Amino acid sequence: MKKLIVGQSGGPTSVINGSLAGVYESAKKNGFDKVYGMLNGIEGLLEDRMIDLDEYFSKEENLELLKRTPSSFLGSCRFKLGKVEDHEDLYEKIFEVLDKHSIDSFIYIGGNDSMDTVESLSDYAEAHHKHQNFIGVPKTIDNDLPITDHCPGFGSACKYIATTLREVICDNAVYGDTKKTVAIVEIMGRHAGWLTAASALAKDETCPGVDAIYLPEVAFDIDNFVKETEELLKKKSNIVIAVSEGIRTEDRGFVCELLDTNLQTDAFGHKELVGCADALGRILRDKLGVKARPITLSTLQRAAAHLASKTDLEEAIECGKLGAELASRGESGKMVIMTRVPGEEYKIKYEVFNDIHKIANIEKKIPLEWIDVENNYVKQELIDYMKPLIQGEVKQVVKDGLPQYIVLK
Amino acid sequence: MKKLIVGQSGGPTSVINGSLAGVYESAKKNGFDKVYGMLNGIEGLLEDRMIDLDEYFSKEENLELLKRTPSSFLGSCRFKLGKVEDHEDLYEKIFEVLDKHSIDSFIYIGGNDSMDTVESLSDYAEAHHKHQNFIGVPKTIDNDLPITDHCPGFGSACKYIATTLREVICDNAVYGDTKKTVAIVEIMGRHAGWLTAASALAKDETCPGVDAIYLPEVAFDIDNFVKETEELLKKKSNIVIAVSEGIRTEDRGFVCELLDTNLQTDAFGHKELVGCADALGRILRDKLGVKARPITLSTLQRAAAHLASKTDLEEAIECGKLGAELASRGESGKMVIMTRVPGEEYKIKYEVFNDIHKIANIEKKIPLEWIDVENNYVKQELIDYMKPLIQGEVKQVVKDGLPQYIVLK
Repeated sequence: MKKLIVGQSGGPTSVINGSLAGVYESAKKNGFDKVYGMLNGIEGLLEDRMIDLDEYFSKEENLELLKRTPSSFLGSCRFKLGKVEDHEDLYEKIFEVLDKHSIDSFIYIGGNDSMDTVESLSDYAEAHHKHQNFIGVPKTIDNDLPITDHCPGFGSACKYIATTLREVICDNAVYGDTKKTVAIVEIMGRHAGWLTAASALAKDETCPGVDAIYLPEVAFDIDNFVKETEELLKKKSNIVIAVSEGIRTEDRGFVCELLDTNLQTDAFGHKELVGCADALGRILRDKLGVKARPITLSTLQRAAAHLASKTDLEEAIECGKLGAELASRGESGKMVIMTRVPGEEYKIKYEVFNDIHKIANIEKKIPLEWIDVENNYVKQELIDYMKPLIQGEVKQVVKDGLPQYIVLK
Repeated sequence: MKKLIVGQSGGPTSVINGSLAGVYESAKKNGFDKVYGMLNGIEGLLEDRMIDLDEYFSKEENLELLKRTPSSFLGSCRFKLGKVEDHEDLYEKIFEVLDKHSIDSFIYIGGNDSMDTVESLSDYAEAHHKHQNFIGVPKTIDNDLPITDHCPGFGSACKYIATTLREVICDNAVYGDTKKTVAIVEIMGRHAGWLTAASALAKDETCPGVDAIYLPEVAFDIDNFVKETEELLKKKSNIVIAVSEGIRTEDRGFVCELLDTNLQTDAFGHKELVGCADALGRILRDKLGVKARPITLSTLQRAAAHLASKTDLEEAIECGKLGAELASRGESGKMVIMTRVPGEEYKIKYEVFNDIHKIANIEKKIPLEWIDVENNYVKQELIDYMKPLIQGEVKQVVKDGLPQYIVLK
C-alpha cells in the first residue's frame, strides 16, 4: 500500500488548489492507494494533523470545485524548518509522523521557503537512510522563483491586476479635464516587480493603460517621482500610476517606511509593507495640490479566483500532476519547473529540475534590460513574456449569483 | 426634428453606461432624430461640449460594448447648479446652449445631486416658459436615493463586494489556528451602510461569511469594537470584519479622522474618507497584538464591470429606456423609479415619480429594524432585500484575456 502526503505553504494564490487537484488526480493514477493532505503545511504535520483526501475528492464535482476555490484548501504556514544541526528534533518528529502513517512520498506546493523545506527534508532523508522521497511543486504570485519560466499563480494575479487597472483607468478618467486626478495603485512584490509590471498589460486600443510603473528593481527617488508626475499632468489630466509595495530609495529604504514607522514583521522577519501608495498620495497632494487617490490591491490580487486565468489554472494542475508522477517514481529533492518552448506559439514543457539547492532562497527579479527606466515603464519583451499567461477564462460554479467553493469540514 | 441630450453625473458605477445605452436605444425608437451626449455632465454643457451619439452607437456591437464598459462613458462632473437666485447666469447659459442646438429634452443619469439639477432646471423652465423638459434616471452604488426600491449600480457593487469578501475570507483563513488574523475590509458609503451590508451576502453553506459588520447608521464605539473583536477571537482564530468608510463615534466624529487629519474635501464639501480600516487595524494591533490587515475596496467596488450583476445591468437599461420614453412624452421634473412587486418572486415595475423635490438631497439610510445592533450584523430582511439584486452574470467581451470597452475618441 503506497501512501503520499501533500501540503501547501506560504502565501495563497488563486490557483494553488489547482496544483493540489493535480497532485491528487495523478497520485491516484500513479499507484498511490492513499493521498493525505497535511493541514497548515509542515506546521500541521509536526502536530500530526492531516486528512484523507478521498473523503472530499473521490467525488469528481468536488475536485472541480477545488480547482475554482482560492487560497490554500489545506491551510498554509510560514514555518521554516531551519538547518538540521539547529533543529534536529523537528526533523526527527516529521519522520516519526511520516513513519507512523507509513507515508512514502511528500509533496510540498509552495514558493522559495517551501522549496527550502523540500531540500532540507530530502537531504535529511538521504543522510539518515530514510525511504521517503520529497518533491516540490512551484507556486507564487510573485513569480520570483528562479529556473522555472514562471510560477503557477502569477498569471492569474496578472489577469486580476490588468483587468482591475482597466477599470481603475476608466474610473479615474471620469472627470476628464475638469479635474486633475491621480490614482496610485499599490501592487504586491517585496523585492521583485513582476506583478507591478503586469499593470502594463492593461493597455490596448481601447484602454490608454497606466502612465507610469515604478518597480523595486530600480531605486526610487521621491523628488523625481514628483517631477515626473507633474510632467505627466501637463500632458493629460487623469493619470494612473502603478507602484510596487517594495519600492525603495537609494539611501532611505522602503518608501512606505518613510511615513509609517508602525510596521509589523512577519514570521520570517520580512517587514509587512503597508501604505506606500498612501505615502506617495500624501506627497503628491502636498507638493502638487492634486487629488491623489491611493488604491492598494492587497490580498485581493492573490485570491481573485473569479478572474483566474485558464492558462494559469491548467499549468497549476499540470505541475501538480507531474509532481505526483515524480513522487511515484521515487525521485527526491526535485522540483517541477516550466520551460517555455521557443517559437511563435506559446507552449510550455513541464520538466524536472534536479538541483533544488539552486532554487531555494533565491529571488528572481525582473532583468534590467526588460525595464524602461527612462520612461518609468516596461519594455515590450516583458509584456510579450506576460501576455500568454493571462489567456482564457475559468468558468466559476455560481449559485445565487456568487461563486461556490469547497472548504474543510 | 426632435432632439434629446443625455448626461451622466456624480460617481461612476459599473452599469451607468447601461442606462445610457437604454436612453439611446429608446430615444431612437421614440421619435428623437438626434441624441446628443453632454461631456462631463452639466459642466461640459455649460461649455457647449457634446457629441452625437450616432457616431458611436448606430453600430449595434458598440452599444453592446457600452453596456459592458464601466464608469461614465460621457464623463462626469460633481457640479451643483445651486439656487436660481444665486446663479441665474448659469441657468441662462444652459438654456442658451440647449436652444442653440434646438434640444427638446434633457436626461440626467445620476444620484441625489443630479436629481437636484433636474429639479432646478425643470422648475426654471416652467417659470421661464421654456419648452425643454427634464427627466432624471437614477444611479448610485450607495443606494441612498429615497422612493425608488433601489438604484441601478447598487446590485453590481453588492455582487463585487460579496464575491471579493468570499475570496478575502478564504485568504484570511489560510493559517487557521496557527495564527490569529483579522482582516478589516473598508467599504464605501458615507452616511448610508447599504454597501457595507452587502458583505452579509458572502455567507452560505460553503462560506462562513464575515464576522461583524459596522454600519454608519449606528454610533461606533472604539472600546466596544476592541472588546467585541477580542471576544470573536476567543471563538475563532481568523476573522473578517466589514466596516463602512463612514462609521462615526458618538462624540468624536468619523473614525478615520481620529488618526488622520490630512483629509481632502471634495467639491461639495464632503470630506474624503480615507483610512478608517487603517485606523482600526492599528488600534487592534496595538490593543490586542494580533495581525490586523486593512483592505480598502476603494473605487474597485464601483468600477468592477467584470463582476456586474445581470439583474442590475438589465434594470439600468430599463430605467434609461423609460427615461427616454418620458422625455418623448414631454414629461418634466420627473424621475424613473423602481418598485418591487410584492410576492415570492422578485419582480420590478418601472414607474414615474412626479415629485422629484421629494428625492433630491435626501439620503435613504438602512432602516434601524434591519440592523442587528447587538451582534454587529444585519437582519435577514436586509439580506432578502439585497439577494435578488446580484443574480446573473454579464458575459464580457474578452480579447487577449482582458475585457473590452468602448471609450471616447
